[in-house]
Amino acid sequence: MNAEIIAVGSELLTPQRVDTNSLYLTEKLNQVGFEVVRKTIVGDDRPRLADELRQARGASDLVITTGGIGPTLDDLTREAASDALGRRLVFEPSIVEAIEQRFQRFGRKMAEINKRQAYVLEGAEILPNPNGTAPGQYFRDEEGILIILPGPPRELQPMFEEQCLPRLLQLESPDKYYTATLRIALLPESDVDERIGPIYSVEPRVATTILAAPGDIQVHLRAKAPTLEEARDIAESLSLKVEAELGKPVYSRSNEALVEVVARLFRERQLTLAVAESCSGGMLAEMITSLAGSSEYFRGGFVSYSEQAKIETLGVPAETIRDHTVYSAETAEQMALAARRKLNTSLGVGITGVAGPDGGTEQTPVGTVFVALADQAGTQVVKRSLGGGRDRVRGMAALIALEMLRRRILGID
Amino acid sequence: MNAEIIAVGSELLTPQRVDTNSLYLTEKLNQVGFEVVRKTIVGDDRPRLADELRQARGASDLVITTGGIGPTLDDLTREAASDALGRRLVFEPSIVEAIEQRFQRFGRKMAEINKRQAYVLEGAEILPNPNGTAPGQYFRDEEGILIILPGPPRELQPMFEEQCLPRLLQLESPDKYYTATLRIALLPESDVDERIGPIYSVEPRVATTILAAPGDIQVHLRAKAPTLEEARDIAESLSLKVEAELGKPVYSRSNEALVEVVARLFRERQLTLAVAESCSGGMLAEMITSLAGSSEYFRGGFVSYSEQAKIETLGVPAETIRDHTVYSAETAEQMALAARRKLNTSLGVGITGVAGPDGGTEQTPVGTVFVALADQAGTQVVKRSLGGGRDRVRGMAALIALEMLRRRILGID
Repeated sequence: MNAEIIAVGSELLTPQRVDTNSLYLTEKLNQVGFEVVRKTIVGDDRPRLADELRQARGASDLVITTGGIGPTLDDLTREAASDALGRRLVFEPSIVEAIEQRFQRFGRKMAEINKRQAYVLEGAEILPNPNGTAPGQYFRDEEGILIILPGPPRELQPMFEEQCLPRLLQLESPDKYYTATLRIALLPESDVDERIGPIYSVEPRVATTILAAPGDIQVHLRAKAPTLEEARDIAESLSLKVEAELGKPVYSRSNEALVEVVARLFRERQLTLAVAESCSGGMLAEMITSLAGSSEYFRGGFVSYSEQAKIETLGVPAETIRDHTVYSAETAEQMALAARRKLNTSLGVGITGVAGPDGGTEQTPVGTVFVALADQAGTQVVKRSLGGGRDRVRGMAALIALEMLRRRILGID
Repeated sequence: MNAEIIAVGSELLTPQRVDTNSLYLTEKLNQVGFEVVRKTIVGDDRPRLADELRQARGASDLVITTGGIGPTLDDLTREAASDALGRRLVFEPSIVEAIEQRFQRFGRKMAEINKRQAYVLEGAEILPNPNGTAPGQYFRDEEGILIILPGPPRELQPMFEEQCLPRLLQLESPDKYYTATLRIALLPESDVDERIGPIYSVEPRVATTILAAPGDIQVHLRAKAPTLEEARDIAESLSLKVEAELGKPVYSRSNEALVEVVARLFRERQLTLAVAESCSGGMLAEMITSLAGSSEYFRGGFVSYSEQAKIETLGVPAETIRDHTVYSAETAEQMALAARRKLNTSLGVGITGVAGPDGGTEQTPVGTVFVALADQAGTQVVKRSLGGGRDRVRGMAALIALEMLRRRILGID
């Protein structure tokens, strides 16, 4: 079955705003067998919105609108739906009561203008909104289903989950969907696609999406089948084939981020970590500490941005820097050793390099990074030449460190 | 004049992808007097896309499509445009030549399938694509303008800037737009709106948008007038009134981020900085070093996540932590002093607190942060109780530090 999503609101037509509700709705709709075939954003414009609704209802089984049902006069979704469906709006005193009670709970009095929110399409079911004043509406006729929802995600999401999904699940849907996800570290998108294309392209029951962020690729395999079990089997069996082809760089089969996988490993094995960062400027420490519970294994970090910070505070030998420069495998190694020694941890990381845009030399051009690992068994350093500008170089350096940690702990390579 | 943007591509209808081209295009179109009245996303579906184009052309002066003009068979924008306009596609040998030359530059041979990209609408002007194989098209008739552009931003943006904007500027547009921007630190959105609402709402020639991120509010004042000069005067004069109302928290009139403003001040006044972070976990250092040239003033940072890191490595007196706990004004102060002393800088920052979700106590519940500043004149500490979860607490702590630095350097307060 097909679905369309119409986001309503002139603020969504400015250069600053994106419609994120449709991403949430698409994910939920796909799970229950709806294919989203069109998404639209229209302003607070009654005739345009009415046109949009007419066109969408003619083309798709399900139409969902988000936004435009507040109390103020520029909120026109109710009126436009009435125009499009040729059905009048009827006043529902029970809605006014609910809104009045809500205001009372906050010690305030309902404004007269909120009564606008008590009008519903004749024949529509009211969808109560526990987190706001605007109720939603669920309307079904021979042309299809129309769901009217409020714009704020914290109002929309529970309403959709608790009130719309159960209704949609009752419909006789011919297809179920299941998505298997693989996450892959540090391989280029083109490599991944070239290697797994021959595998996924011969499986017509699966829609494959490859999402590439620098150093981090997600492969989503969405299978369609008459039952959820079949869809799961199809997706998971293809996922195993894809994983077998890609091998070691596959770091997650459950959509965990790399930093989450590494955090789990540190906690499971009761290891501790200290990091010393130069070009990544605290990004690795920030990623690690972004997760709750990181204090269990993360002792601390050094952002050794100046030579003085590397030598005096961290304890990198001055002669290492003098003999090899700050941008060298030797300096990265000494940073990892010093971080581990200073904070007495199982593992230490050292990152140095040239993030750019300036500071490159012939020997170490912009994008050169050295990442070192130290543990009781010794040290390990990798050198990489990265492109793509300052942000990418910094982010990739942090990801390289995380992937080295993952492999070291798991004994891969 | 009205414009619509149609993004083409089934991948844009998955839960993972947003269409960002339309944000770029909206900003540029607004500047030259086009109001974007609708944005749509459709899949690689020829009849749907043709319907969409028909509807859009009937409703708006300008229609722009992005994507769907690659070489493969699922790229159908050309064919759908031909269907919608009732114009045939004609083969342009010059395009094939350009694509062949592009392949030769990379030492490769053009695939036969790329010839699909050489078909253009009869009567359309070809828009060469210096960064890809897919040329764009510019078509104008009595119904309006249709622009066909490729999807990748690095291809689309220079083509729009260099080839489309000059054509659109030649049109006789009745209105010009100018946007003035103010950025405000650490005020809640509701406060800002309540205070400036009475100011902007009496100026009907300006559309006001308030964009709120935690601790950082942008007020965009977009004025419409017959000439750009008038639009600028209207927007800037309103901007002055808004700034007068909000006062000290206004940190930028040129859309600089707070960290950029602080970086500029450090460089202008030749000051140096060291930071010691606990709950923010390296986020402040990361923000500072995200800017090129930060090594001029940023000496380094300590992510003192454990007590051991605070006492042994950084040098916070053990008795300060014993007497006041790690979550205290005294510890934050000692961290700022130690960071400044260790790296011999003009200014030092210390951040400690409870980011959560665990670790709170009755005296210092989750969300309590202490941010301290040290310079040659002494120290200064603030305590804040922040809501909104771990990420927000960490981010806000870093912003509080930046705003304290800005005010200290400028002598505000």
